[in-house]
Amino acid sequence: MAEIALLDHDTVLAAVSPAEAIDRVRDGFIRYASGEWTMTPKVYLDVPPNGDFRAMPASGSGLAILKWVTSFPRNPGKGLPVVMGMIDVSDSETGEPIAVVDVRSVTALRTGAVAAVAAQELAREDARTVGIIGCGVHGTWAARCLADAEYGPGVCFDPDPDAAGALAGELGWEAGSLDDALACDVVTCVTPGHEPVVTADGLRPGAHLNMLGADGPGKAEAEPEAVARCQLFCDEWEQASHGGELTEAVRAGLVTQDRVTELGEVLTGMAPGREDDAAMTLFDSTGLAIQDLAICNAVIEAHRAGAVRAATARI
Amino acid sequence: MAEIALLDHDTVLAAVSPAEAIDRVRDGFIRYASGEWTMTPKVYLDVPPNGDFRAMPASGSGLAILKWVTSFPRNPGKGLPVVMGMIDVSDSETGEPIAVVDVRSVTALRTGAVAAVAAQELAREDARTVGIIGCGVHGTWAARCLADAEYGPGVCFDPDPDAAGALAGELGWEAGSLDDALACDVVTCVTPGHEPVVTADGLRPGAHLNMLGADGPGKAEAEPEAVARCQLFCDEWEQASHGGELTEAVRAGLVTQDRVTELGEVLTGMAPGREDDAAMTLFDSTGLAIQDLAICNAVIEAHRAGAVRAATARI
Repeated sequence: MAEIALLDHDTVLAAVSPAEAIDRVRDGFIRYASGEWTMTPKVYLDVPPNGDFRAMPASGSGLAILKWVTSFPRNPGKGLPVVMGMIDVSDSETGEPIAVVDVRSVTALRTGAVAAVAAQELAREDARTVGIIGCGVHGTWAARCLADAEYGPGVCFDPDPDAAGALAGELGWEAGSLDDALACDVVTCVTPGHEPVVTADGLRPGAHLNMLGADGPGKAEAEPEAVARCQLFCDEWEQASHGGELTEAVRAGLVTQDRVTELGEVLTGMAPGREDDAAMTLFDSTGLAIQDLAICNAVIEAHRAGAVRAATARI
Repeated sequence: MAEIALLDHDTVLAAVSPAEAIDRVRDGFIRYASGEWTMTPKVYLDVPPNGDFRAMPASGSGLAILKWVTSFPRNPGKGLPVVMGMIDVSDSETGEPIAVVDVRSVTALRTGAVAAVAAQELAREDARTVGIIGCGVHGTWAARCLADAEYGPGVCFDPDPDAAGALAGELGWEAGSLDDALACDVVTCVTPGHEPVVTADGLRPGAHLNMLGADGPGKAEAEPEAVARCQLFCDEWEQASHGGELTEAVRAGLVTQDRVTELGEVLTGMAPGREDDAAMTLFDSTGLAIQDLAICNAVIEAHRAGAVRAATARI
């Protein structure tokens, strides 16, 4: 019997600010690139026709986590979220279970945070304006993290004008058209990935693109020809080339591995970032377990320090 | 926020008797063999020098589970169990988290139960006596399940005579030597797998061997030559040939896949079982997520029916 802490949605958000999420996710990519943190490839358990469950293990800095999360695209039609599940956190020295952590808050923070980290590393020095394409939960958190990293003002686009308006209102940005959003310095796409929103013709020299929506086979937010015109970065090559924004361009023979740099290599100085001010940089974020680990480390530290309180249970 | 039930060790054991565990695990193998239940291969997250964490997803009968469990062989030296973790249970229709379940009780029940199922299917009709080699937690539960399935009396062997004596006392069996245990009709090995306890010379015609201890690369309880002399069965070929009792014999070229039958094929009548009364049958149990799913289904049903009570938490 172990006593575990139950760290729910509000506790996670009280424990970890966007600024801390950005620092932690940056640090996590560096530790992973330097071999200090480890993870295994995502495992997909298909549950047709509902969607799939994903198991994502990672370990580092004394913790081992396992994220267990759904991608159930039909759920909104039933009034349920696409993303549900939990994160098990264990002590990697003793093996003891420590906590169960809400999955949606951690996923939102780590997905939003990496958009800010990638912009800080890959966008032009003078980049300021933000285009948010897709204003759901993850688009909202990407915008919050980018605003926290002093990007903005931004243009928020969503097929649902209320979603775009709410996010723009929260941040003092504006709701606008898809073209307005695509004309910004830091374009951040967080759509379901069913059809491309970025075309080869729509690319603007000097822009940085964060592609956050394509997180599984068959999803894409940019046309393969648009991807091929950019200087390419990703969170992790295996995931990006098999279930990310790069997948179609790789399959079509337009992109090969030697053209793609992992974000951690840039952060550690192992590889260069943006070539020049005219380059169009594209970052393919598929979502890594080490990002979840980074946020979980922050939550567990805050809980241990007494900064947040949580229910406990014996299991 | 989902309300999840916290089903601890004692609740699991109150909800599921050895007899029900045997029925459920048998049913789970049948549903898996017939394609109704699914699972992915075990994922190992190494945490040197402590051991590894394993992630084991499975789905069926309305549930999707993820088992997150350690194998930390050095833990007993620190006064901690080798096996720790938890099992996340979600609704496979909606994706909603339902419960967190104690991992040790479920693992013990499903490991013990499969020893009884395999004996019922593969041992001789007139087999009665049981040799238990290794009287730790899983050896104890294998003995309890075999006794529940009306096997016995048995001989319990363990390097620690107190462990052998306690188990023998509980079941009204006897503590004895390794040779005494190996002379029984149903020999059940549940050792750490560091060195073989079954040699080619020690095999007795007509015996049935349950090999439960080898659950990862480099572990074995029988010499490859002994394995090769038996009529071979396993829970799942991929696991058994890569991280089970069969692994060394396969690597040495002594055993090929066409010589090995999966238990589910025997249970569904897709393949024959024991050839004749003189055959030595060997069942390699590596432990499958569908066995955990079978027990979790029983626990969740008992909880929903009000047969057991549990704490709940919002996460």
